[in-house]
Amino acid sequence: MSVLTLADVYRARRRIEGRVCRTPLVESPSLSALARTPVYLKLETVQPTGSFKLRGATHAVARLADQGCKRVVTASTGNHGRAVAYAARTFGMETTVCMSSLVPDNKVEAVRALGARAHIVGNSQDDAEHEALRLTRDEGYAYVPPFDHIDVIAGQATLGVEILEALPDVANIVVPLSGGGLFAGVAFAAKQVSPKVRLTGVTMERGAAMHASLDAGRPVQVDEQATLADSLGGGIGLENRYTFAMTRDLIDALILLDEASIARGIVHAYRQERLVVEGAAAIGIAALLDRALPEQSLQRGPVVLIVTGANIDIDQHRRVIDAA
Amino acid sequence: MSVLTLADVYRARRRIEGRVCRTPLVESPSLSALARTPVYLKLETVQPTGSFKLRGATHAVARLADQGCKRVVTASTGNHGRAVAYAARTFGMETTVCMSSLVPDNKVEAVRALGARAHIVGNSQDDAEHEALRLTRDEGYAYVPPFDHIDVIAGQATLGVEILEALPDVANIVVPLSGGGLFAGVAFAAKQVSPKVRLTGVTMERGAAMHASLDAGRPVQVDEQATLADSLGGGIGLENRYTFAMTRDLIDALILLDEASIARGIVHAYRQERLVVEGAAAIGIAALLDRALPEQSLQRGPVVLIVTGANIDIDQHRRVIDAA
Repeated sequence: MSVLTLADVYRARRRIEGRVCRTPLVESPSLSALARTPVYLKLETVQPTGSFKLRGATHAVARLADQGCKRVVTASTGNHGRAVAYAARTFGMETTVCMSSLVPDNKVEAVRALGARAHIVGNSQDDAEHEALRLTRDEGYAYVPPFDHIDVIAGQATLGVEILEALPDVANIVVPLSGGGLFAGVAFAAKQVSPKVRLTGVTMERGAAMHASLDAGRPVQVDEQATLADSLGGGIGLENRYTFAMTRDLIDALILLDEASIARGIVHAYRQERLVVEGAAAIGIAALLDRALPEQSLQRGPVVLIVTGANIDIDQHRRVIDAA
Repeated sequence: MSVLTLADVYRARRRIEGRVCRTPLVESPSLSALARTPVYLKLETVQPTGSFKLRGATHAVARLADQGCKRVVTASTGNHGRAVAYAARTFGMETTVCMSSLVPDNKVEAVRALGARAHIVGNSQDDAEHEALRLTRDEGYAYVPPFDHIDVIAGQATLGVEILEALPDVANIVVPLSGGGLFAGVAFAAKQVSPKVRLTGVTMERGAAMHASLDAGRPVQVDEQATLADSLGGGIGLENRYTFAMTRDLIDALILLDEASIARGIVHAYRQERLVVEGAAAIGIAALLDRALPEQSLQRGPVVLIVTGANIDIDQHRRVIDAA
């Protein structure tokens, strides 16, 4: 675990201070009643780009700015891409987002609205990623990886220290699990500060690459499938350097949820918490509603659920609410 | 204006620190594009009780606790009542909420869920208020007024200093206007810190008591009418002591909105900002969408809209969204 230290996390926090929101931690009366222990929601939904991804991206971009870098590139049109574009703009850097011709217009416009250049290339996400790497290799762009980079992990880890500062007696932290950047960062920081904290990863049954990789004992590929928790899709990289090992070493429990459960989480967030959340962000709430967290974990004390983001297609949100 | 000083506001802030959320101030790209100046949302929706009312109630209750008071009473079943019950519980005080037999069960249950005693009496809000005052007079309870009290105003004023600290160059603050506690507090604090800030009050056309009172030059009664901005209903008190005069002296512009406009604000908050807000909280957004803020105000610089709360009946919210 020597790749990261708690001092790195605090330095990351100082570096991103004022650019990233120190988000509210709000108790949920309905979930506390259900769990019979205080349950808190860590609201990354209020970050300027609507998701926690801004933490890691801002830190990684800040470090590149320190090195004199002027141009960054990414192939993500989702939360990571938005975060990179937003962060780079605040440092006066240019952002290019490589995307295939299949990316819908509204996502292209969203990228441009953040001041980034939309570079349309090829017919698949793979084509877009190859172009991003080519620009990095041949044209002096800096690539900001979505999760498997130590500066990104340190940025996400700032979420962990915020939780421990606001709630020193937290006993359980529940983290949506995808590539593992958020999980690794939060778990590392939380256990450094308070070794007894229990870290639970939650992900979807459909196409969860980290789960399959942990089962196999090494990074493996899985077929991506449509899911309400689309932000949790994607592989962890067969040449994963950090997040696989850190997640493996730090995770206490892993919960898989089906689509109906994720939908219940979205509906509960809306009806009981007055929150619009994306599927990936509803997954901690869903796990509690499903009573998927073991009773003995809940008896250990307060629970924090990281509500990672709000960037759901709003018509999809309405459909989920209306179907309930 | 000597009834309140900026020092009082900072003392209030120190007194409520840790009990009330220092809420996020988030830029809205869609509203900034519309206004052609940066527009920020001050998200009181994330307060533990879902509205800004917690600020004033916590400060007033804290002052009562300092005086050795053990029991508080209110007749509000809305945002103020929730705030008083929540605040009193954190100080180990008992709360009684007087309410008439006409108050629906879900509101009675919500009061009990906050640990308060629901005291059912009479058949009207007036009966409930009389009982609250009787308990204050005869049984040693302390009454926490919803707006026309200097400790409440000082508590709401903490919102003003937070805005100025986060955004020193703010040129316009748009405040939902009802009894005037929030308006008076925020306007006072903001103009003390930065005299050039322009304060706009926004309220609904239907039954706005402060608007009618300002027109008449003295507090007057108006008939309450059903409105989406129900939190802004109610009188300002014919024997108003503070908020009428402060609002009159500090307000730069007053905007009245119809129900269709308020609904548009709720819909925009949901679709563009991924926020569930009550009608009263959508009113600043609605004013911008209606282009009710004069161009010359917008040209002066950044705008902050106070998004006061999230406590809308969720089925009403769905109906407004579905009707759009």
